[in-house]
Amino acid sequence: MTEQAGNRVDRRKARTRAALVRAAQACIAEGRTTVPILEITQIADVGMGSFYNYFETKEQLFQAAVEDALETFGDALDALTADLDDPAEAFARSFRLVGRLHRRQPELSKVLLHNGLALAGSDQGLARRARRDIEAAVHAGRFAAVRDLDLALAVATGATLTLGQLLHDHPDRDDLEAADLITEDLLRMFGVPADEAHDICQRPLPDPDDVPRRDSVA
Amino acid sequence: MTEQAGNRVDRRKARTRAALVRAAQACIAEGRTTVPILEITQIADVGMGSFYNYFETKEQLFQAAVEDALETFGDALDALTADLDDPAEAFARSFRLVGRLHRRQPELSKVLLHNGLALAGSDQGLARRARRDIEAAVHAGRFAAVRDLDLALAVATGATLTLGQLLHDHPDRDDLEAADLITEDLLRMFGVPADEAHDICQRPLPDPDDVPRRDSVA
Repeated sequence: MTEQAGNRVDRRKARTRAALVRAAQACIAEGRTTVPILEITQIADVGMGSFYNYFETKEQLFQAAVEDALETFGDALDALTADLDDPAEAFARSFRLVGRLHRRQPELSKVLLHNGLALAGSDQGLARRARRDIEAAVHAGRFAAVRDLDLALAVATGATLTLGQLLHDHPDRDDLEAADLITEDLLRMFGVPADEAHDICQRPLPDPDDVPRRDSVA
Repeated sequence: MTEQAGNRVDRRKARTRAALVRAAQACIAEGRTTVPILEITQIADVGMGSFYNYFETKEQLFQAAVEDALETFGDALDALTADLDDPAEAFARSFRLVGRLHRRQPELSKVLLHNGLALAGSDQGLARRARRDIEAAVHAGRFAAVRDLDLALAVATGATLTLGQLLHDHPDRDDLEAADLITEDLLRMFGVPADEAHDICQRPLPDPDDVPRRDSVA
């Protein structure tokens, strides 16, 4: 096989794997985790047999699907906060952007909510990044009221999940205001003075369109 | 049928229904929500046919099981906080007791965690009581920083769920300290001064053995 043909095969394999991952993400978002592999391959429009070239079990695919979605979104958040020197503001901006995810990318939001509790203490994805940001803000003396990193992370991830659920349950609710208010509450809880917490959560955000949408995942 | 015999039939029916509810609670706690009805009746040690005398579907039984577990626990919390005049302390005491639930009653805790996100905004069970307590404390001027009751409830319920998950994931973690620290953080977030929040969360709790255990549910 020439190098060119080899690359073509690699690209095709990557496309097939990505199609399976996307199909699994759609099923998880709908809460259909009992869906048979055959149906996943049909949604992905790939042959049933090819599934096992990429994954040993459905659980392995689902795991990859969740991790992929959250890593992609987390990478986007990192890019959208790279210009900030203040770790407290970096945490706040990420949290406000995650709060805007539920309406803008409801499928990804539901992947997050369906797996959220198991992921809340994860060392990957959004939880890893939230821990990193909170830790940096503590070290910089910005989150002086945080006495226990695990508990601070637990409150922040819990608030992310219940905010998402609230926004899905109440489609009339203003999601921007809700996300900013909760972020402000968390900043105060972590030790940022109230007026400064308010100010940080009113600052303009980068264009959320810069956050990749689900269809560009993988 | 004599009145006495009628009462005996009623009691037997109540026992059968309670056995089904307890079996469903055990399955939910293990995450086995796809378990067939036959198996539930075997766990409950009742005839397969009797299932449909009490419930139309398995979903109906599961719903009843979750509501029953949380109402029973909620009633216990109400009894354990009835002596308090300060609604901020009533919220704090309930929250600290719920935090102690995860280790003391792991099955009930897992029922809560498996259904938690859907229940977080519920008008029943623990969410209804948490909303009532937060609202009373706001009206009494004790939670002056709460601007939005739904969001305050979202943060509190989210913290309950992620604290439970953290304690299950880290069996070595001191659950009493963790529950009290998180409660203190929430009180501060809701507007209670830091020193007072700390003091409230150090006060003695009623004997948690007064909280009914799972086997006395229903």
